[in-house]
Amino acid sequence: VTQPPDRASAEALDAADPLAAFRSRFPDPEPDRLYLDGNSLGRLSTDVEHGLAAAIGTWRTRAVEGWAEWVELPRRVGDRLADLCLGAAPGEVLVTDSTTVNLYKLAHAALDLRPQGVVATDADNFPTDRYVLEGVAAARGRRFVLADSVEGALQVPDAALLCLSHVDYRTGRRLDLGGITRASEAMVVWDLSHSVGAVAIDLSGADLAVGCSYKYLNAGPGGPAFLYVRRELQDALTSPVRGWFGQRDQFAMGPAYEPAPGIDRLMAGTPPVLATTALDAALDVVAEAGMAAIERKAASLTDLAITLADAWLAELGFEVVTPRSPTERGAHVALRHPEAWPICRALIERVRVVGDFRQPDILRLGFSPLYISHTDAWDAMDRIRTLVAAGVHRDIDAQLRRVT
Amino acid sequence: VTQPPDRASAEALDAADPLAAFRSRFPDPEPDRLYLDGNSLGRLSTDVEHGLAAAIGTWRTRAVEGWAEWVELPRRVGDRLADLCLGAAPGEVLVTDSTTVNLYKLAHAALDLRPQGVVATDADNFPTDRYVLEGVAAARGRRFVLADSVEGALQVPDAALLCLSHVDYRTGRRLDLGGITRASEAMVVWDLSHSVGAVAIDLSGADLAVGCSYKYLNAGPGGPAFLYVRRELQDALTSPVRGWFGQRDQFAMGPAYEPAPGIDRLMAGTPPVLATTALDAALDVVAEAGMAAIERKAASLTDLAITLADAWLAELGFEVVTPRSPTERGAHVALRHPEAWPICRALIERVRVVGDFRQPDILRLGFSPLYISHTDAWDAMDRIRTLVAAGVHRDIDAQLRRVT
Repeated sequence: VTQPPDRASAEALDAADPLAAFRSRFPDPEPDRLYLDGNSLGRLSTDVEHGLAAAIGTWRTRAVEGWAEWVELPRRVGDRLADLCLGAAPGEVLVTDSTTVNLYKLAHAALDLRPQGVVATDADNFPTDRYVLEGVAAARGRRFVLADSVEGALQVPDAALLCLSHVDYRTGRRLDLGGITRASEAMVVWDLSHSVGAVAIDLSGADLAVGCSYKYLNAGPGGPAFLYVRRELQDALTSPVRGWFGQRDQFAMGPAYEPAPGIDRLMAGTPPVLATTALDAALDVVAEAGMAAIERKAASLTDLAITLADAWLAELGFEVVTPRSPTERGAHVALRHPEAWPICRALIERVRVVGDFRQPDILRLGFSPLYISHTDAWDAMDRIRTLVAAGVHRDIDAQLRRVT
Repeated sequence: VTQPPDRASAEALDAADPLAAFRSRFPDPEPDRLYLDGNSLGRLSTDVEHGLAAAIGTWRTRAVEGWAEWVELPRRVGDRLADLCLGAAPGEVLVTDSTTVNLYKLAHAALDLRPQGVVATDADNFPTDRYVLEGVAAARGRRFVLADSVEGALQVPDAALLCLSHVDYRTGRRLDLGGITRASEAMVVWDLSHSVGAVAIDLSGADLAVGCSYKYLNAGPGGPAFLYVRRELQDALTSPVRGWFGQRDQFAMGPAYEPAPGIDRLMAGTPPVLATTALDAALDVVAEAGMAAIERKAASLTDLAITLADAWLAELGFEVVTPRSPTERGAHVALRHPEAWPICRALIERVRVVGDFRQPDILRLGFSPLYISHTDAWDAMDRIRTLVAAGVHRDIDAQLRRVT
């Protein structure tokens, strides 16, 4: 029987980690916290803090004249995101609105191009994706098919539009984006929220995508989302939301809306300047680290966590749900346990391992590569086994039941 | 002939101004600038700067656990806005998305309630309003009527939905919101972008409204917008954008979207936390000053500006377009001049009077009551007359022509 890696092995991995120094860019005022929820909300870097301060300074100093630079933000930061994280070309990505609103816009626009056919996704897709698609399908008189699984969704007959999450928000499973893109006859809109900034993405040939900036990109709570449209499709698409930032001439006197050329037509209202500047600064960190190195570290951290889960947690009732091949997962690990909810609460409240719970029985642990070390991962798994072995979560469970 | 007020009169008005002290809350690093564009982008207050710093600190310290307080922001800040600025009840206002997206959501939702009838607005309404409505009408198979004037829009036969700006973005004309609300058979959606924070608004009985936070509310560039829905209408409305923040149970496993009760159903994606916190802090300033006092000062500043325009600028070819009764205008004054464009550029570049230009011939001057003094207004008008009398704008015009 192979012994599981000891703490010294984790320290050795950190010593050899080319990204180790980035951890100090995300100082934690609570040093004992093991923050494994960067897959939900990424942490604040000094880069973003300084970027926000600079944007606030521009507002103070230049006031309305700041728009001379701000007006380019959605596309300029979109171009950086395209280049650094998405494998997309300049002019294919826009930073704007929320993931929900972006998916809504793209789904409507896509159905204009496919006048027949159903809208499909899988029942495990992220809730907002399912809701948006159901609503768009209803508004457009299309059938909405909620397949049992991704495999089922891929085989829905007569699909006009298919929405898939690149990395599943619960299980952490990563799909073969390139293979599905090449094989699908439907237009596919990818939700990259749980993969962007965790693994390198190559959107070559993909039609449509959306995603958020507040998870692995660390751009801040409610930070702006992005959308991607393949260049060749852009001038055929019309946004259902005809806003002044998507109009060819923003202050035109004429009555008629005329969409701007290219990706700009998918803008709606005034862009969120401060938050987009935060994303710009967050991308400085990504640029310095490089997505290939970030993805390698995500694989290394999740490997360690899965190995320790097998060694220590299986006997405590945990099951590793996340795929075991690093190319088939993102940067979070999902552990199934019948008591996942009280365990998650106990970890947060008693030993400051901050993960999160997803219905019905999943404990999610996110290993955000820029600020989580192998030692952090080792310590977290160690705290989990100690806490669950001692039954501490049962006290929490009793408390939670008394409250509700 | 009455002499126009001299500078000492303006100083006397400032000495008696109960809001004079608020000016120091908006320190200007460029002391000679006369910033008359708060109707486009309001200035940074120390309150908002501290509010943003606190929100950034919460992100740093609490990270994902910050959501315990952030999740309430859209409604909590909406309730404050309702109370302080809008004459609306708790639970009637939500801070979310952009004005464009909010108008889009409300227009679609309103047409669900009015299965027949046309969509109308006036040709002078703000561009994004016209574009959004045109698009919604087209999507819903309704006729879209762009009336020549507000009066024409009020008389469009068979109007299901009418959109009006409370204060016109160019002329500064303010409509009788209460009177029109009572008289209209159409559902009216008010765009309050150019009046909120400038004049006290009473939405009693009004059906629908939207507006932005980055003008007189001073919440920052691209700050979040708001929407208002009369309580009695809320549970009959469905947002076209079915997002997870508008769902009854955000993380529900079930496939079906079920709208949250009340105003929450009009939320879509993850709310912009930092920007909404900025608005919360901006409202602290409004609360301290009081909207009645703010509106009184807006009237006093624009009175002074109009008096000086009549005395000094009429003979230089300017026409005051803004109504002369303070109850019929907001806090900006529109001056028509055939050379408005080069005059606007020359004022900004040569004498740091920062106003703005609107097609085809309007110079807009905004007198944001919290940080503009009567002396500022006097000085600005004085700089305008001196510059135009000397023909400085003609040099600028020649330059602009060379560039293009």
